[in-house]
Amino acid sequence: MTDTTRGELRYEGKAKRVYATPNPTEYLVEYKDEATAFNAQKRGSWVGKGATNNAITAALYPKLEGVGIPTHFIAKLSDTEQLVKAVTIVPVEVIVRNVAAGSFAKKLGLEEGTPLARPVVEYCYKSDALGDPLINTDTAVALEWATEGDMARIRELALQVNGFLTPFFGQRGIRLIDFKLEFGKLPSGQLVLADEISPDTCRFWDAETGEKMDKDRFRHDLGGVEEAYGEMLRRVEQA
Amino acid sequence: MTDTTRGELRYEGKAKRVYATPNPTEYLVEYKDEATAFNAQKRGSWVGKGATNNAITAALYPKLEGVGIPTHFIAKLSDTEQLVKAVTIVPVEVIVRNVAAGSFAKKLGLEEGTPLARPVVEYCYKSDALGDPLINTDTAVALEWATEGDMARIRELALQVNGFLTPFFGQRGIRLIDFKLEFGKLPSGQLVLADEISPDTCRFWDAETGEKMDKDRFRHDLGGVEEAYGEMLRRVEQA
Repeated sequence: MTDTTRGELRYEGKAKRVYATPNPTEYLVEYKDEATAFNAQKRGSWVGKGATNNAITAALYPKLEGVGIPTHFIAKLSDTEQLVKAVTIVPVEVIVRNVAAGSFAKKLGLEEGTPLARPVVEYCYKSDALGDPLINTDTAVALEWATEGDMARIRELALQVNGFLTPFFGQRGIRLIDFKLEFGKLPSGQLVLADEISPDTCRFWDAETGEKMDKDRFRHDLGGVEEAYGEMLRRVEQA
Repeated sequence: MTDTTRGELRYEGKAKRVYATPNPTEYLVEYKDEATAFNAQKRGSWVGKGATNNAITAALYPKLEGVGIPTHFIAKLSDTEQLVKAVTIVPVEVIVRNVAAGSFAKKLGLEEGTPLARPVVEYCYKSDALGDPLINTDTAVALEWATEGDMARIRELALQVNGFLTPFFGQRGIRLIDFKLEFGKLPSGQLVLADEISPDTCRFWDAETGEKMDKDRFRHDLGGVEEAYGEMLRRVEQA
């Protein structure tokens, strides 16, 4: 039996804490109820947020493994905890966009909801202090945050994740507008999907009503945040 | 003899005017003495700026043609005028960086002057109204500003330009820090280098003293702007 006693706190992010475990190749991830937006300038929390995001991620990761996408996920341990493989996070956030929304739409003068003729994969340097600035593959390689091969593999995996999630959510009445991924490296050097996939990290729009079912409800004070997250869990769990 | 009578004004940019000529396949470009910076929030001008940039560009373009890089350049017509092939400008500005400087250094928290392990090619959407936002190849293709093939060719040509200019300036005691290019399409579909290459569009640092020899002198009120531009022309013209 795996010993999942919490060890030292290894990392605390805006929505999760990562702990060591007695097994050096495994980490325990705890999902918090805190929400932040606009580079943590806006803060909030609600009871059950951590549990909902943990449940959604724990439901999706094995499905991604099932279609051949390697991930850090091992098992859900409790309402707010999962066991994952210990990885070194690549300091490059990956954004996949199917439809123009948020800061992307604004900076390009596009109406939110403008469809993109093909998915757009963007990269940001993971740095709260710098506000996660937009970079590209050349920059990641030139500054040695990843190799050229890593970046090609990350792009390939990100598009595979999109290729699975878009129809998965489509069948559940949800348009996957865009989402953020992170990747980590195992000691073997293998790149695996890490972090979460949840309404915190994706834009989900109801396919019929166009209603936002994600963190934009919190960002823009649209109300019904908890209900939207709960509804997303329900859709993910539906057969 | 080519009739270079100025026709209709086709385009007026911050530093140049483009006129039709009696030959529909040729444009006349006039270099202005105006300088702008920070998306035209800062403005200035000095006598001879247009002539200097015209002379530098007119000296460099045939050398680029000589190493196999197709350009729009036909001939220098006068101190401030050149004749070029009529192209449709691709609305994507291309920035090649050898050393971190300017906004790139700032947004990534790097000291200006940090060398890059390899050249970084960046793309911006050419839009004064939007402040030329940073984009990537996916975005240019998804929004149909260029095809995938166009973007690959633009990257290849930009790196070829860097491969020629870096040693060219190095031999003249100048470090080529970064520069901006634009590309246009001939009616045949061929992509060619367009626009100018000058201290307005490049960062040049004196290899011995580190002195800035480019528009940063104007941007940051360092003085000696005219002298720096004149010195760059002298270095370009030196055998």
